[in-house]
Amino acid sequence: MNIRFYNARILTMDGSCDLMEGELWTKEERIAYVGPVKDSSAYTWDREIDCKGNVLMPGFKNAHTHSGMTAMRSYADDLPLQEWLHTKIFPLEAKMTGQDNYDLTQLAILEYLTTGVTSIFDMYLAPEEIAQACIDMGMRCVLVSGLNMFGPALEVMERRFNELNGMHPLITYMMGVHAEYTCDKQLLENVSALIHKYEAPLFAHMSETRTETDECIERYGMTPPLFFDSLGLFDFGGGGYHCVYFTEEDMDLFVNKGLYAVTNPGSNTKLASGIAPIGRFLDKGMQVAIGTDGPSSNNCLDMFREMFLVTGLAKLLQKDASAVAPEEVLKMATVNGAHAMGLKDADVLAEGKLADIIMIDLHHPNMQPLNNIVKNIVYSGSKQNVKMTMINGQILYEDGRFADSMDAEAIYAKANQIIERLSAE
Amino acid sequence: MNIRFYNARILTMDGSCDLMEGELWTKEERIAYVGPVKDSSAYTWDREIDCKGNVLMPGFKNAHTHSGMTAMRSYADDLPLQEWLHTKIFPLEAKMTGQDNYDLTQLAILEYLTTGVTSIFDMYLAPEEIAQACIDMGMRCVLVSGLNMFGPALEVMERRFNELNGMHPLITYMMGVHAEYTCDKQLLENVSALIHKYEAPLFAHMSETRTETDECIERYGMTPPLFFDSLGLFDFGGGGYHCVYFTEEDMDLFVNKGLYAVTNPGSNTKLASGIAPIGRFLDKGMQVAIGTDGPSSNNCLDMFREMFLVTGLAKLLQKDASAVAPEEVLKMATVNGAHAMGLKDADVLAEGKLADIIMIDLHHPNMQPLNNIVKNIVYSGSKQNVKMTMINGQILYEDGRFADSMDAEAIYAKANQIIERLSAE
Repeated sequence: MNIRFYNARILTMDGSCDLMEGELWTKEERIAYVGPVKDSSAYTWDREIDCKGNVLMPGFKNAHTHSGMTAMRSYADDLPLQEWLHTKIFPLEAKMTGQDNYDLTQLAILEYLTTGVTSIFDMYLAPEEIAQACIDMGMRCVLVSGLNMFGPALEVMERRFNELNGMHPLITYMMGVHAEYTCDKQLLENVSALIHKYEAPLFAHMSETRTETDECIERYGMTPPLFFDSLGLFDFGGGGYHCVYFTEEDMDLFVNKGLYAVTNPGSNTKLASGIAPIGRFLDKGMQVAIGTDGPSSNNCLDMFREMFLVTGLAKLLQKDASAVAPEEVLKMATVNGAHAMGLKDADVLAEGKLADIIMIDLHHPNMQPLNNIVKNIVYSGSKQNVKMTMINGQILYEDGRFADSMDAEAIYAKANQIIERLSAE
Repeated sequence: MNIRFYNARILTMDGSCDLMEGELWTKEERIAYVGPVKDSSAYTWDREIDCKGNVLMPGFKNAHTHSGMTAMRSYADDLPLQEWLHTKIFPLEAKMTGQDNYDLTQLAILEYLTTGVTSIFDMYLAPEEIAQACIDMGMRCVLVSGLNMFGPALEVMERRFNELNGMHPLITYMMGVHAEYTCDKQLLENVSALIHKYEAPLFAHMSETRTETDECIERYGMTPPLFFDSLGLFDFGGGGYHCVYFTEEDMDLFVNKGLYAVTNPGSNTKLASGIAPIGRFLDKGMQVAIGTDGPSSNNCLDMFREMFLVTGLAKLLQKDASAVAPEEVLKMATVNGAHAMGLKDADVLAEGKLADIIMIDLHHPNMQPLNNIVKNIVYSGSKQNVKMTMINGQILYEDGRFADSMDAEAIYAKANQIIERLSAE
């Protein structure tokens, strides 16, 4: 599809949060032009879309999620992390099939589209089925393994790394482990050997709770980030999910190695895990991205809620209303997320970049008046303002409707059947 | 209008959060029937609405707001309360006309409709114009005076109390003062005399920041609630907005006098004011309602964000993922709000009650699967899920469209013109 968007306010996120008025053209999966009004009469278009002054911006990157956990939304709430995992989540997950993962990922994808998410960093049980669900629906997905002592072996991760990377333009695969507390030292050493063989970055849940951090120090005399680094696991980059209980030394490591901290404020709030010191991260020069975490601990997949929480919780933690500027938050939710996920071509709106674009509807009361559009998006925005979600040049969601190829009601019915089956004795 | 809603899941909020399947009938401004499927062939209907399994529930009560502050949304952010008020807000407010208040309240009303708010507890500059804006658009409004040393005199409050109460079925008026720190003792004593003359409840901003509380203790040797009570200001009920820095003694007072604490977590977060101890309030048996505060400090008017924050911030504060159950939150946002505002007939869905009803769309990905609908609403809900907002028997918002009588674009244009004029030198 070649599409001409005109009468747009464009937030390229290329270096600043300044808006320009103009046009954006897509040619197949790429952006062919971004700039002021330009004569387009020599071109033929599949569609010409009058943006009516609405904002075009890079889609949000959900830099940490477990999509297949949609089945367990509102199924087991109001429990702390460890109890929630061990008594409620793990027993159900043991019964989940590959087909369940496919169907439940599709439910999550519908929700991502409504909140303007154009790529996901997904760690869950059945990567092949997650990949297929994303390919079938058009979602860009960076899979990351959640290797641990209880799941598939290291060899499976290596095979997937080789097979899933390059299987489809929408899919890449990164190495990762679930967390320090679900891996023993031997396993992590073996992972490190693989990291060095492929010169690959590594991601893991990291310092999510006080207990996790304390127990790691007890076991190894080091915090989780320093322990991982001591094994060479960060020698080729990567980063951590959550990063709530970070010491100054942990932050220095992340800065020095160019690692990414992916913050998950909704989940950390709902599970009472704590507040990540995002303001301090920024002061130190750390790279921060944003994720929703899975829909069983959050419980929704809503980048607007996450963005407000990133800055809001920082303000509360620091007792400073100026903590973490909205411009920084928007950068985290777009550019930084793309870079954390290795998506160098899906970060900003510029000629030659991938057409992963959303339109924010300013013709809603919560976006008015137009004193400051970036602040409106971060402080007042909601899913309702997502007028269009385009991934890889394809419009998958527009004016509240999913692409014709998607049967939302059938997906809802399957999700209900799955949780009924999984939760039966 | 006489409307028959059928195929509904009904959350009456009458004593519990249980849902029933059935029908709800409205006759003019009242609910004529709520219950299981019933033969309706003897009646004639203006409309029969197939709810398709969606939820009918009482509309949300926004129990603390300053609607007219929409002009200042994203105009002055990232400042602490006192600096924000004195350097940014008060100078602009000094220039606002009655017509500005009318137009800006209309913008807020549009936003309330999108988030399922069916009545507002509004403290702002021009009550007559606020009332007229609400009447013209069909919003139920409890006005509350924000009496202070710098605005209209006590006599104006008394006149408004007598004139605005009963002027229209949608409008009531309550006595209130802005806050302890904007009133001297003499003024508060005069207010107390009026409270006793009319046996009226009183509301005020209360213990919103540490500074406010400390300075009150310094001035009078008492916290704001105890100081107000010492003057007899709570002899006929009422309560406080914000209530962040409450002592055990303050809580005991609120319990013993049946006062309402209206919590405003979005605003308290964005202004870095602090976290109200809601879990403790509930343990003590206090009555808690929820408000958005004004759109300049929040910055959006979104009861879903507030509901998540009420329980989420409590979980963080108490380091307990089970703190403040979602059922309690939903009660705060509906029944308790109505009671705080004196709206005894707009609290639950039952025969004879006012038809202030919203429909929550479950046919959205964030509401699936249906493991627990109440938890879905509180933990995952968003404005997007508000399929319909009915006030006083009139459908004012449905499927993303405002009633034909409302010209949203004209209201947006006016808001932009107003802030341009107010912020000019």
